[in-house]
Amino acid sequence: MFNLRGMYAPIATPFENDEIAYDRLEENMNFWLNSKLSGFMVMGSNGEFVVMKPEEKKELIRAVCEMSKGKKPVIAGTACESTRDTIELTEFAAKVGADAAIMINPNYYKRALSDEVIKTYYIDVANASPIPVLLYNNPANTGINLSSKLVADLSYHPNIIGIKDAGGNIVQIAEIINNSDPNFVVHAGSANFLYPSYVLGAVGGTCALANILPDECAEIQELVDANKHNEARLLQLRLLEINHSVTARWGISGLKAAMEMLGLFGGIPRRPLLPLSDQDKKLLRDILEKAKKPA
Amino acid sequence: MFNLRGMYAPIATPFENDEIAYDRLEENMNFWLNSKLSGFMVMGSNGEFVVMKPEEKKELIRAVCEMSKGKKPVIAGTACESTRDTIELTEFAAKVGADAAIMINPNYYKRALSDEVIKTYYIDVANASPIPVLLYNNPANTGINLSSKLVADLSYHPNIIGIKDAGGNIVQIAEIINNSDPNFVVHAGSANFLYPSYVLGAVGGTCALANILPDECAEIQELVDANKHNEARLLQLRLLEINHSVTARWGISGLKAAMEMLGLFGGIPRRPLLPLSDQDKKLLRDILEKAKKPA
Amino acid sequence: MFNLRGMYAPIATPFENDEIAYDRLEENMNFWLNSKLSGFMVMGSNGEFVVMKPEEKKELIRAVCEMSKGKKPVIAGTACESTRDTIELTEFAAKVGADAAIMINPNYYKRALSDEVIKTYYIDVANASPIPVLLYNNPANTGINLSSKLVADLSYHPNIIGIKDAGGNIVQIAEIINNSDPNFVVHAGSANFLYPSYVLGAVGGTCALANILPDECAEIQELVDANKHNEARLLQLRLLEINHSVTARWGISGLKAAMEMLGLFGGIPRRPLLPLSDQDKKLLRDILEKAKKPA
Amino acid sequence: MFNLRGMYAPIATPFENDEIAYDRLEENMNFWLNSKLSGFMVMGSNGEFVVMKPEEKKELIRAVCEMSKGKKPVIAGTACESTRDTIELTEFAAKVGADAAIMINPNYYKRALSDEVIKTYYIDVANASPIPVLLYNNPANTGINLSSKLVADLSYHPNIIGIKDAGGNIVQIAEIINNSDPNFVVHAGSANFLYPSYVLGAVGGTCALANILPDECAEIQELVDANKHNEARLLQLRLLEINHSVTARWGISGLKAAMEMLGLFGGIPRRPLLPLSDQDKKLLRDILEKAKKPA
Repeated sequence: MFNLRGMYAPIATPFENDEIAYDRLEENMNFWLNSKLSGFMVMGSNGEFVVMKPEEKKELIRAVCEMSKGKKPVIAGTACESTRDTIELTEFAAKVGADAAIMINPNYYKRALSDEVIKTYYIDVANASPIPVLLYNNPANTGINLSSKLVADLSYHPNIIGIKDAGGNIVQIAEIINNSDPNFVVHAGSANFLYPSYVLGAVGGTCALANILPDECAEIQELVDANKHNEARLLQLRLLEINHSVTARWGISGLKAAMEMLGLFGGIPRRPLLPLSDQDKKLLRDILEKAKKPA
Repeated sequence: MFNLRGMYAPIATPFENDEIAYDRLEENMNFWLNSKLSGFMVMGSNGEFVVMKPEEKKELIRAVCEMSKGKKPVIAGTACESTRDTIELTEFAAKVGADAAIMINPNYYKRALSDEVIKTYYIDVANASPIPVLLYNNPANTGINLSSKLVADLSYHPNIIGIKDAGGNIVQIAEIINNSDPNFVVHAGSANFLYPSYVLGAVGGTCALANILPDECAEIQELVDANKHNEARLLQLRLLEINHSVTARWGISGLKAAMEMLGLFGGIPRRPLLPLSDQDKKLLRDILEKAKKPA
Repeated sequence: MFNLRGMYAPIATPFENDEIAYDRLEENMNFWLNSKLSGFMVMGSNGEFVVMKPEEKKELIRAVCEMSKGKKPVIAGTACESTRDTIELTEFAAKVGADAAIMINPNYYKRALSDEVIKTYYIDVANASPIPVLLYNNPANTGINLSSKLVADLSYHPNIIGIKDAGGNIVQIAEIINNSDPNFVVHAGSANFLYPSYVLGAVGGTCALANILPDECAEIQELVDANKHNEARLLQLRLLEINHSVTARWGISGLKAAMEMLGLFGGIPRRPLLPLSDQDKKLLRDILEKAKKPA
Repeated sequence: MFNLRGMYAPIATPFENDEIAYDRLEENMNFWLNSKLSGFMVMGSNGEFVVMKPEEKKELIRAVCEMSKGKKPVIAGTACESTRDTIELTEFAAKVGADAAIMINPNYYKRALSDEVIKTYYIDVANASPIPVLLYNNPANTGINLSSKLVADLSYHPNIIGIKDAGGNIVQIAEIINNSDPNFVVHAGSANFLYPSYVLGAVGGTCALANILPDECAEIQELVDANKHNEARLLQLRLLEINHSVTARWGISGLKAAMEMLGLFGGIPRRPLLPLSDQDKKLLRDILEKAKKPA
């Protein structure tokens, strides 16, 4: 099994003239490959997977696997609203070298998507997938929460190895750790609650913030491992405001603007998302400046 | 302008062996073409548009336009999460003869999808569309409500002609009627609130229930037009329970099972949605029996 | 049985120097007694019952019963968070002449307040009450919705005669009418949805707006009774904006400011509620001016 | 200043024949006074303050202050829905010896209770109070969340010294710690998230579970102080299920049943809350058995 411990970046997809810019992606990948990141998640929410065509999704997964080959593992986001499309994309990801596949739950027919229906979805996909599968909980985007009971049930499937939980409910994270298969891996899905997740037993994170501050994100876990809890605490508190800006407040538009400011290629998101206004860019720049220096 | 008055069916997509069954569709279309329906909406929520591939979407829109040609108007659901895919599909729908296009708002990046972002999405699409555009509000599926203020603002765009509001907030429907362009058309998006919508000024409905009871759905408006309010009221109350079953309670699975029971082709939905259990089918059959007879 | 048909005013409680001003109340009562109102609700949400001491509640109920005696019926709001306090206050209300008692459901321990617990509360109170009991649903204030199933179940209790439903879910109102005891009375709890409620079978309203525009509120029902649906519709639409201002937008502070502007005694609410700012008062005055004239 | 560090019990109010049983209270107090508890909160949510009459509230505060005098500090819950009643009760609590007062925010008029209104409420009370004031956030009961911005603003008031945050949003707890006055004290409001709160900088807890397992609750902080993080983690995980049962699942009824099972006086809650069914009692007993032994 590849290493799921540590910090993964759910990488942003660079667009130029509204098309995926593979040369820009390679520049970013080089930065990330030389960081403390443990691995990559391609085609997550921050990768704008919902605005990409099926062929684009495949090309992007293939490209990231090639760029990362032999260096760091790649987890491919393969969620489609239908089970069959998810399986097809998961099989493709396996073929081009992804180490694992991760999928957000289907979420359009909210009233019909009972625990039973979602469970069947994940079991169908996990049964068919040639590579290990991770769950992905993101109620702010999906409007559905994967309950700790549902996650614990699925954790015992032999091909389901972990979850990225972006919900931020720390009690739920504790319950998942309490009730799941001991080998089941929990990743905090946001830098907002990395440190409290680690102390409860999470073994990694997959955080938007790792696109721009991979080392700082990785260091929280290093500090916990070294039993330096006060330093971990201070680093966590320092990362809060900037992370709030690049996730809750300005989302992908904020993340991409921050990437530009920090020397990466960011570009702008695909519509309907709109780029940051000049005024918001100024606010963001101030936050980045402040966050870079320890208090 | 084609006639937007009256009852439209947001038609279910028939699958056999998990593929679109065009012969079955034609059987259903013949039933609907001989009913009191005013027109069709293809690729709505009940049409399972979120689990269809881009090519399937195009084929289905083309097929329904051909089957309905010269008989009843067709409104094509063309929403994609990205603006550019929505425009591409809208242009295709225009080319193959759709009378109008309707699109649910983008809904994955909920925190980023401010009124401003959603407004820009609809304006971008309406500007590019060769055919008139309708808004579609369905907060139970999207987790986002199109506010009456947003709808009223958009109603003055020359290429935005109406809304299907499935939210069921009757005060919001009244506000939209109060504040929108006088030519802007409001369709009730569910048979649950057809009659109260009509008395406030809605001029039509696009209701899942019209797949199976097109005439009954259309008759509520006929009764209102004839000033037979007590009969309209009684018909509305009679349709409530069955409609609850084929929408809120069992969703598309319930609708398709009901179609089978009433002599149409229903089939089963694509996964992740699961077909009705035998026990639920029995309950549904009882409800259908009861609903067919006036109290 | 007293007449539950028509428009009831959930009267505002006048405070001067933060104490109940009974002389001011009498002035207001004289205005309301000479209006088209059918009756009064004292100690509703708009009566600020939650910020009054037990003794004040009793005095106020007694005073309104005396002022209204022999002229119009009085429904007393007697809800307390505990069953026993509710029963005590209900018995008092009966003793001083209230025609019926109405109570919002207990709402603090939201997770514990299952349908079963709320049902037991209402049955306990209805069993003990010497006067008929009405339910009161106001999810915007309580965070709990009385489901149509719960209401229908309670409607068959011999001492539970009706509901004021302020939730505004028109489908739920239809379901209550559909499934409840035929003698069970439904009042629309806001002027926002009076007309659609009447056409579905509601027989009255208990609406904040009736404090300031009692005749206009009453006339919607007169128009429905006279089968003048288009005029009812236009009046409903005209009342929407002003009602929005004195309920959702500015609440009791807005209602009291509007009362002042229209020649009644309004005063200001008890803290923590704050009076309207001068700027908001100006906006409110403009809305009142506009609303008074038919479009 | 009295010691706010450590574990406080928000004590349950014992009722016999539906009246406060002061002898039973004294028995319980003796147990708690001999435990590792740092202090008491009387008249919190678990104390059923919302179903007590004004005079009962005063008697209870006085009694707990007397029983605890010179041994452990007492924080009195003094929230009433009106500012003036809150101030009156707070002044009373100060007079009879409470060390501090804590108040849940007003919560009935949810739409009117803006941050500005709630802020004014707390400032009014803090200005008038002879004793220090703590905020109390409990969105599951109130339907309102005190935002980290609002809390941070209030933290700089000289007479507002801390918060009990029962919301369980660990990111919000981190933000409060990040942005508040450095002397401002944060208590975790539930045993569900004690350990992650401590590592982020909380200095205490006020947890329903401390009624029955005061030492275990206190020991988490001892382990953190001793830098024994793995043991703290294991204890936290062990307390999860039982705490879930006595809070979210069965609430006060569950807490009181658990007290009975563990040799304290529990009794039953006042109506509308209903006692646990025999079946639920059996389930609870099993959970208590299991929880007592370390895994």
